[in-house]
Amino acid sequence: MPSYATNMRLKVPILALTLEVVTIVLYALLVVYDTGDADGHDGTHEESNTTHSSSPMTLYPMFQDVHVMIFIGFGFLMTLLKRYGFSSVGINMLLAAFGLQWGLLLQNIWHMHDGKITVTIEKMINADFSTATVLISFGAVLGKTSPVQLLIMTLLEITTFCINEHLVVGLLEVSDVGASMTIHAFGAYFGLAVARVLYRPGLRNGHENEGSVYHSDLFAMIGTVYLWMFWPSFNSAIAEPGDAQLRAVINTYFSLAACALAAYATSSLVEKKGKLDMVHIQNATLAGGVAVGTCADMNIQPFGAMLIGITAGIISTVGFKFLTPILASKLGIQDTCGVHNLHGMPGILGGLAGIVAAALGKKDNVTATKQACGLASSLGFALVGGLITGLIMKIPFWGQPPDQNCFDDSVFWEVPEEEEENEERLTHGDYSKTKEEA
Amino acid sequence: MPSYATNMRLKVPILALTLEVVTIVLYALLVVYDTGDADGHDGTHEESNTTHSSSPMTLYPMFQDVHVMIFIGFGFLMTLLKRYGFSSVGINMLLAAFGLQWGLLLQNIWHMHDGKITVTIEKMINADFSTATVLISFGAVLGKTSPVQLLIMTLLEITTFCINEHLVVGLLEVSDVGASMTIHAFGAYFGLAVARVLYRPGLRNGHENEGSVYHSDLFAMIGTVYLWMFWPSFNSAIAEPGDAQLRAVINTYFSLAACALAAYATSSLVEKKGKLDMVHIQNATLAGGVAVGTCADMNIQPFGAMLIGITAGIISTVGFKFLTPILASKLGIQDTCGVHNLHGMPGILGGLAGIVAAALGKKDNVTATKQACGLASSLGFALVGGLITGLIMKIPFWGQPPDQNCFDDSVFWEVPEEEEENEERLTHGDYSKTKEEA
Amino acid sequence: MPSYATNMRLKVPILALTLEVVTIVLYALLVVYDTGDADGHDGTHEESNTTHSSSPMTLYPMFQDVHVMIFIGFGFLMTLLKRYGFSSVGINMLLAAFGLQWGLLLQNIWHMHDGKITVTIEKMINADFSTATVLISFGAVLGKTSPVQLLIMTLLEITTFCINEHLVVGLLEVSDVGASMTIHAFGAYFGLAVARVLYRPGLRNGHENEGSVYHSDLFAMIGTVYLWMFWPSFNSAIAEPGDAQLRAVINTYFSLAACALAAYATSSLVEKKGKLDMVHIQNATLAGGVAVGTCADMNIQPFGAMLIGITAGIISTVGFKFLTPILASKLGIQDTCGVHNLHGMPGILGGLAGIVAAALGKKDNVTATKQACGLASSLGFALVGGLITGLIMKIPFWGQPPDQNCFDDSVFWEVPEEEEENEERLTHGDYSKTKEEA
Repeated sequence: MPSYATNMRLKVPILALTLEVVTIVLYALLVVYDTGDADGHDGTHEESNTTHSSSPMTLYPMFQDVHVMIFIGFGFLMTLLKRYGFSSVGINMLLAAFGLQWGLLLQNIWHMHDGKITVTIEKMINADFSTATVLISFGAVLGKTSPVQLLIMTLLEITTFCINEHLVVGLLEVSDVGASMTIHAFGAYFGLAVARVLYRPGLRNGHENEGSVYHSDLFAMIGTVYLWMFWPSFNSAIAEPGDAQLRAVINTYFSLAACALAAYATSSLVEKKGKLDMVHIQNATLAGGVAVGTCADMNIQPFGAMLIGITAGIISTVGFKFLTPILASKLGIQDTCGVHNLHGMPGILGGLAGIVAAALGKKDNVTATKQACGLASSLGFALVGGLITGLIMKIPFWGQPPDQNCFDDSVFWEVPEEEEENEERLTHGDYSKTKEEA
Repeated sequence: MPSYATNMRLKVPILALTLEVVTIVLYALLVVYDTGDADGHDGTHEESNTTHSSSPMTLYPMFQDVHVMIFIGFGFLMTLLKRYGFSSVGINMLLAAFGLQWGLLLQNIWHMHDGKITVTIEKMINADFSTATVLISFGAVLGKTSPVQLLIMTLLEITTFCINEHLVVGLLEVSDVGASMTIHAFGAYFGLAVARVLYRPGLRNGHENEGSVYHSDLFAMIGTVYLWMFWPSFNSAIAEPGDAQLRAVINTYFSLAACALAAYATSSLVEKKGKLDMVHIQNATLAGGVAVGTCADMNIQPFGAMLIGITAGIISTVGFKFLTPILASKLGIQDTCGVHNLHGMPGILGGLAGIVAAALGKKDNVTATKQACGLASSLGFALVGGLITGLIMKIPFWGQPPDQNCFDDSVFWEVPEEEEENEERLTHGDYSKTKEEA
Repeated sequence: MPSYATNMRLKVPILALTLEVVTIVLYALLVVYDTGDADGHDGTHEESNTTHSSSPMTLYPMFQDVHVMIFIGFGFLMTLLKRYGFSSVGINMLLAAFGLQWGLLLQNIWHMHDGKITVTIEKMINADFSTATVLISFGAVLGKTSPVQLLIMTLLEITTFCINEHLVVGLLEVSDVGASMTIHAFGAYFGLAVARVLYRPGLRNGHENEGSVYHSDLFAMIGTVYLWMFWPSFNSAIAEPGDAQLRAVINTYFSLAACALAAYATSSLVEKKGKLDMVHIQNATLAGGVAVGTCADMNIQPFGAMLIGITAGIISTVGFKFLTPILASKLGIQDTCGVHNLHGMPGILGGLAGIVAAALGKKDNVTATKQACGLASSLGFALVGGLITGLIMKIPFWGQPPDQNCFDDSVFWEVPEEEEENEERLTHGDYSKTKEEA
């Protein structure tokens, strides 16, 4: 396959080191420690006018929870594919490690003091958040892209995200504490737009590697459970300290609990034999965390959060069962992980819930109109940004793998011997053998 | 197997959604955020009369540690069975997600302010605790029950637990900060009583799936290690802030360290070839956390905690080796995960240690008599509650799997292709093949 | 193989229980709770003269992060070998559980109040740290030693470590907040010295079990990602509260991010086909955490940390590719996990960076000369201590496994049936079959 040029020996090192060196130069010029002189709470999610508690480390446990969601949660959630675990957790780490450096720079470029960005724990949380958009989009194109394509996507998506976030949260002052709109819906539709541009007719009928094995499903559950447990931290980390932060924790806790029951119930219902489907459980149980994001710090009461959660769990499961196949066959959107069901629709649901909550006066200084603008802007930036990014990623030079090598770590990774043997067997038509290794 | 009716297509959705809708209605009527007006520290473990620190989020890192124990710790600990990992981690999540909603309601129904339950982080910790009882009992009946049976058990066991807890901790003011008696002994004997009622003569000689494979044992170690690490949080989360909480952390830390050495030593000793047994390591290393629970906040000094830990590690390992087979063959109690050895005996040991410590005056306002009453009450409620619950669970309608389908995810879950193939092979007698997939 | 006497039935129980009983007696004589009367901050890393915040639990979340690094991070990082996962995570736990008890005793024997050691969270963190040295050395001899040998190594290495730490940090007042020198370089060169003494000519040409399988590499990534995420806690846990601690977090965060990109770039570059190597990703991505350790709390600015990280990532990856084979073939140092590349060279780099930073005045009261003495002392104690320990471990009585049983859990563990079957097959020459199980 010479035309595909999937050998990354020069491309990955040149691109990765160039990006890192440029970043270091920019940091040398612009980024310093916070020393407590300036107000540390005027970051990207500028919802607070109060000063934080005196210790600069107050938010550190929250930061670590978010960090775990980004690196373990997203990384392992995507290990469900039988032969794509190295890429899932490994490339997830690469993209997030670059993304957080880039995100911290761009999110704070609008708020410099004396020409400097001062790093605080809160800004590190926001930097981690910015990478979530890319990891969501990664789910849509999982298995069909090269590391170089994905680094380019990281650069462009985080840049687009930071512009939209500054517009929506910074200038419009839209309320989106758990980022249903600015991260989840944005990341999903950005990724779906990229997937549309990278449409592969050759995968119309599926691919033998596009499935799980028993233990890959268990690895994926590590990701699921960590995301599920720490989502209250995601939705509350940058909330106003005090009652609002407590509300964000409580609402997310109950929304997820209700969502889990709805996901199990619906998964069992949509299948003829009434069996649970691991893909639903791995993903739809989390939709309640996405959908309650915008309203998380609002005064919607626990039962309100549970109503949002139960709705999200049902919509998400139904989406996996019925909508994903239609998106692929009718619209040419091949969404590997079903991010439309976990982040797309629940993200929009979250935005709509925020509009309703604003209309009902559940948070001061928030209006339904502004909230609607925030949702529209996030979707608009995602779709346009995703289409342009997809076109750039489509340039053949970046080493996109050919159809037959999709969903296969061995294109970009050394894999242990027995795996290569199977590959050989596959090449030689001895297919039955490979079924025996899990 | 029509008489077993293991198709859950209607039963799981109807039961799960009914429970969730009833819960939401009750929350709409009764549950609101804590806004700091009322005293947040009069929850179920009402051992404190002092007010907490001013921030409502102080206990949040502790809460997350406990959360990890419930969802990762218990969930993965039970993945040791070779073909039951989906159910272990998945149904664990389902039960805990419903259980925490139900537990929060029932634990606080006795302490309402103006007809309302106010949610705090401490109450969320207690709600998580209440689910631990069910997850312990789940271990006793693992592989032999349907999701519907288990949801019924969750409902009934948490209800029984809340009554006993209110009686013992609330009214009698028994000291049980790490809940050796009210959670561990209670959950174990409740589950053993259920297992007794659900006794399966057909499994007298074991079942081919009732064992581990290499990687399932490693998944189980994820659960073990998380439980081991975060047990100090479990035992100290609701302790009196300050010195008592620090004592609870320190005692648990040292008890577990001593217990680990005892478990390794004993495991090696009881086996002819001196080899370590994964089941012992996965479970008996944790017995020190259970056994030091009641005394955790008492003034027993680190060496006292270590003595408790070393005793628990020995008893637990010996139990796995010698007692579990006897319980199954003589008493008809088939205890899949050996919860009697991890939670039952160490829980009683914890209760007894608490009686001794109370007699020695290691904590103010605690008497040996009261402590003994707390232990007796917990055991009584567990056995009676478990027997009644077991009888209800035995009604054939709930989809209990037949003997030959025990310990097998594929009854209630879609499992990846190669697994079903193996199933076929099994059915067709080609058994040797299945040995090759791990 | 009677001469090897790998049956541990008496040796493990006698040694483990003797160590534990002696420890308990010493604790009964010497160790009590901290009750806040004495200054809690004069532990082993005596860099602070200020009093901590009033709550004794302030450092608890940091402690738990470090705890996770020790038990999950180190434990799972070493599960990469295909048939050595039980030992990796299991023996890791055994050594750390004993090591923390022993470390807490020896680290504080120099600082008693009224003949007593008072336990605080900070001392528990330091105790966990002391075990890291052993776990690093464990990586060098992984697969080639018995549990008894390793317990002896734990006892001797932690004792040596505590003497060097007291000398370097306590008396010389060398700055080493993240312990690049006193833990990482020390642990690595101690382990390499032991490995040199235990050199096995029979493994010159490798061993069939000294490699990974697909899922063992994924288990190892659990360890990698947890170490990567929580390293900021490792480097900042005992830093001066306030700005210094914040700096330590920020420097480590950015050093690791830059290091990850460098590791991916270099891994791709050094391989002919440009493919990523899991061993590099699992280890070299972490070198930035090691290398920034000494300087972590110094005023080196984020870009300085990133420069250290990028250098460490390159050096470490190159070391794995080119240096490890040379160490084995020319110097007789068989370094199973490549700890020289992850802890050895990056640890020295960290020490050197500290000397430069001290010379540039990046921290008050720190001089380049003292820093250099700290590095030299750590290396000296490591090499001499390691050689002597290696000689003691070489005594045939301790059950060291023969060459053909290296890297194989089944020598010291019961392993599930299908594994033993494979073993049989191996013995009977039917090798092809074993390739099919992963």
